[in-house]
Amino acid sequence: MSKINLGNFFEDFEIGQKIIHPLPRTITDGDVSFYIALTGSRFALHSSDVLAQKMGYKKKPLDDLLMFHLTFGKSVQDISLNAIANLGYAEVSFPNPVFVADTVSLETEVIGLKENSNGKSGVVYVHSIGYNQNRQEVLNLKRWVMVHKRNKGEMSGIKHIPTFEKTLAVEKSINIPKQKDIDTLATGGEFFFEDYEVAERLNHPEGITIDDSDHTLATKLYQNNAKVHFDDFMMKSTPMGQRLMYGGHVISIARSISFNGLQNAQWIYSINSGAHANPTYAKDTIYAYTEILEKINHERDDIGLLRLRTVALKNQKPEEISNPKDKDGKYLKNVVLDLDYTVIIPKNKTKK
Amino acid sequence: MSKINLGNFFEDFEIGQKIIHPLPRTITDGDVSFYIALTGSRFALHSSDVLAQKMGYKKKPLDDLLMFHLTFGKSVQDISLNAIANLGYAEVSFPNPVFVADTVSLETEVIGLKENSNGKSGVVYVHSIGYNQNRQEVLNLKRWVMVHKRNKGEMSGIKHIPTFEKTLAVEKSINIPKQKDIDTLATGGEFFFEDYEVAERLNHPEGITIDDSDHTLATKLYQNNAKVHFDDFMMKSTPMGQRLMYGGHVISIARSISFNGLQNAQWIYSINSGAHANPTYAKDTIYAYTEILEKINHERDDIGLLRLRTVALKNQKPEEISNPKDKDGKYLKNVVLDLDYTVIIPKNKTKK
Amino acid sequence: MSKINLGNFFEDFEIGQKIIHPLPRTITDGDVSFYIALTGSRFALHSSDVLAQKMGYKKKPLDDLLMFHLTFGKSVQDISLNAIANLGYAEVSFPNPVFVADTVSLETEVIGLKENSNGKSGVVYVHSIGYNQNRQEVLNLKRWVMVHKRNKGEMSGIKHIPTFEKTLAVEKSINIPKQKDIDTLATGGEFFFEDYEVAERLNHPEGITIDDSDHTLATKLYQNNAKVHFDDFMMKSTPMGQRLMYGGHVISIARSISFNGLQNAQWIYSINSGAHANPTYAKDTIYAYTEILEKINHERDDIGLLRLRTVALKNQKPEEISNPKDKDGKYLKNVVLDLDYTVIIPKNKTKK
Repeated sequence: MSKINLGNFFEDFEIGQKIIHPLPRTITDGDVSFYIALTGSRFALHSSDVLAQKMGYKKKPLDDLLMFHLTFGKSVQDISLNAIANLGYAEVSFPNPVFVADTVSLETEVIGLKENSNGKSGVVYVHSIGYNQNRQEVLNLKRWVMVHKRNKGEMSGIKHIPTFEKTLAVEKSINIPKQKDIDTLATGGEFFFEDYEVAERLNHPEGITIDDSDHTLATKLYQNNAKVHFDDFMMKSTPMGQRLMYGGHVISIARSISFNGLQNAQWIYSINSGAHANPTYAKDTIYAYTEILEKINHERDDIGLLRLRTVALKNQKPEEISNPKDKDGKYLKNVVLDLDYTVIIPKNKTKK
Repeated sequence: MSKINLGNFFEDFEIGQKIIHPLPRTITDGDVSFYIALTGSRFALHSSDVLAQKMGYKKKPLDDLLMFHLTFGKSVQDISLNAIANLGYAEVSFPNPVFVADTVSLETEVIGLKENSNGKSGVVYVHSIGYNQNRQEVLNLKRWVMVHKRNKGEMSGIKHIPTFEKTLAVEKSINIPKQKDIDTLATGGEFFFEDYEVAERLNHPEGITIDDSDHTLATKLYQNNAKVHFDDFMMKSTPMGQRLMYGGHVISIARSISFNGLQNAQWIYSINSGAHANPTYAKDTIYAYTEILEKINHERDDIGLLRLRTVALKNQKPEEISNPKDKDGKYLKNVVLDLDYTVIIPKNKTKK
Repeated sequence: MSKINLGNFFEDFEIGQKIIHPLPRTITDGDVSFYIALTGSRFALHSSDVLAQKMGYKKKPLDDLLMFHLTFGKSVQDISLNAIANLGYAEVSFPNPVFVADTVSLETEVIGLKENSNGKSGVVYVHSIGYNQNRQEVLNLKRWVMVHKRNKGEMSGIKHIPTFEKTLAVEKSINIPKQKDIDTLATGGEFFFEDYEVAERLNHPEGITIDDSDHTLATKLYQNNAKVHFDDFMMKSTPMGQRLMYGGHVISIARSISFNGLQNAQWIYSINSGAHANPTYAKDTIYAYTEILEKINHERDDIGLLRLRTVALKNQKPEEISNPKDKDGKYLKNVVLDLDYTVIIPKNKTKK
């Protein structure tokens, strides 16, 4: 039985430990078609080689979130297979574009450990970096998960908690081509950096219902083997009573829905923080609204950045929600995602 | 809220108006695999590069209907997002083959407008042309949809109704390679142009059950964002009570089923007209039969054309239906599609 | 009606008859993505071009079972469309690797016929060979199916039963590159040929729930047109009451689950025999365990072979089953697959 990999428990981690995750993955056109079919994503840069070439790329780059899922999925077996909860993530960035035919892999360093006082579990903080086949960074992320102990009750007293930036600082150099001649007839959006205002809110009109096959196909495509997502027999004996949707799929659906209103914000610069406020299950319909939290000028004169808060809801239209939390600061029961992230959007002068 | 694109209403259209639809799409092998998985299509020309090369192509061309869906899907946001009903289409043709790696886009001209006497809606008639990256026409179609008015009750009195050909005339030049040496061991069909008789009927033996994930994956793959197809929460408050299947998916399923009996009719020349007689929902099983309406000789000696009527049924076998309409001319409740289209089929002399 | 191909009946077969199955298929990256999404397969050789090149391939070869399904699917129309039961298979081997862009096809010879005494059916034994576009063998298999007679009651008395090897003999030459420097950080497995013991049992910890869209997308992707898998309306009037899952999909799911414990056994050498002990339906969760039946040394010093028995269960964890059969030799009701197959696994010395 010892040949079975049951994943790591709290005691298996130590500060500074480095893990090279197995399963390097060569990304294909099939993965890209799946992402469009699973999410309905319409951001034009990722749909057309001709458009991508006009925007300075050799061909269409991967949607940042697709790359995230394909790369991140590799860490589940080693980091979060025995997770009780995925508590949070921070400082997620996308340093270089990824293209079909690239091979991505992931490496992780343990940067924090905190034993829980109940003696049954602890929190593991990790820093993961995704690489392409040329050893260029394509993903940089920190996250923390609550993990079971192997030996309940044995206390080590470890408490080493790293600090995270609330929002990732924007670097001087941003690795996207110089933008000019953005064809709004191709992107489908008329609005650029200058057109958005802080505190403006966009109620995206579309809702997308997710079925069991959708989210399990997505999770398996990403080779993410967290049991909660695809073992319905096991889940029936839990309080959830059914398979839990992979939180990353909800992020992708919300991003896809946000297209209507943010058509030219085709790049994610960073994910600053996110809360999966309530679980999502098959047959739920996802809606979303977005607030502009901050406008960030950049020394490049062709682009700016918008820090956004996208809130996703299940089975409730965004018009009905003014604040995702109640007066006690608790998330309303239909809120499934509260995402703080920064996108790159060209300036008006780039409009063709 | 003004950044949200809520689609066009009846008053937003005018005769002669030209619309360039966003989202040019580079077609990939992933899209082709999806089409086979979603429809079970077995027409051999679209399955094998080796066979396609023997038939005069550089590689396997896209199934005409897959190209149709990927191109047509772009027009929904601008033309039919606020449609009450898709009333019809005519003169649909496929002037040039499309291949993986081609980038397709769509442009539309408004050719007719007719206000409804109720003051609440009107009919918009459009002519859309799909292009590849070399500006060659790959799709030519006319359709008309009933669209909501923005300002109910304000009458303009507009009534400009174009006329459509009942069946698209066959051109002297047909853009498919000269056929010879058709390998029936590869196509799976022994029958050629001369073998079919007018009024002959083919009861196709297969039935295909469609699930929610199937039709919503298809609709999202095509970046068709008509809400009725993927927002189950919204649809629950309508008389339908659930998501409506994209009519184009039903056409594709019927075409796939028609393979058994029409194996060598691997090209669609035109769609002359079609009626989505009743709605189709998840869990319905589609069956189909085909009648030969007309045999059309062509000056080319290697091919002929068959004008076909394919009737698709839900949850009823074709043997049980002699006429899809009752004595009052109303469609029977299990009829979901009545399609008049013309296919190209080689002549007996091309048989290897 | 005569243009409809209703498949072959028992009387249509004769010993020595050769059938070239239609629909050569060019395999694409889309098919590979589908296989990962449908099964969650994680065998590293099939996920990464970079890793495959380090292991001596020009690029990642197809998973043996994906190739099997895409090739085998072609034989359904001619051999098993009128099958009452797929009784067994033997001597299944994978002589050459298949890559994306290869075009595969299938040919069959009838090697046995046995009329049933009830006069209604008979057993057809066939030997099928799959080829790539260069006429190299990529699949070699024997199977036998019980097929309806066209004319019930007319007896011919034919009884010609071939014999099959219980396990396929291992050849001197095995067509995989010389292995060295296996990167266990990439494959995710530390164990090699020497580490496994005869009678050792691996209880694989993962379970995968299969939904209707999953198994029907798979079956349609393989262009397998056996009605029992995708015509729910028809199946409702049978004792099963619903669509039956394609047995090959169950094999693929079990193989995918077996990754955890057999990570370095990335090649299937042969399938010696298999029983689909009970039917599998949508919503079933598949679990699996594997026993090492035999360790087979090979004259190559870099690899060995393991003969395995993988038993798949529905809705029951492998820990709860010691023997898949009861004391009368009858399969327990939750056992869905009992597979005897041989895999290739590198030796310890190849570990990097």
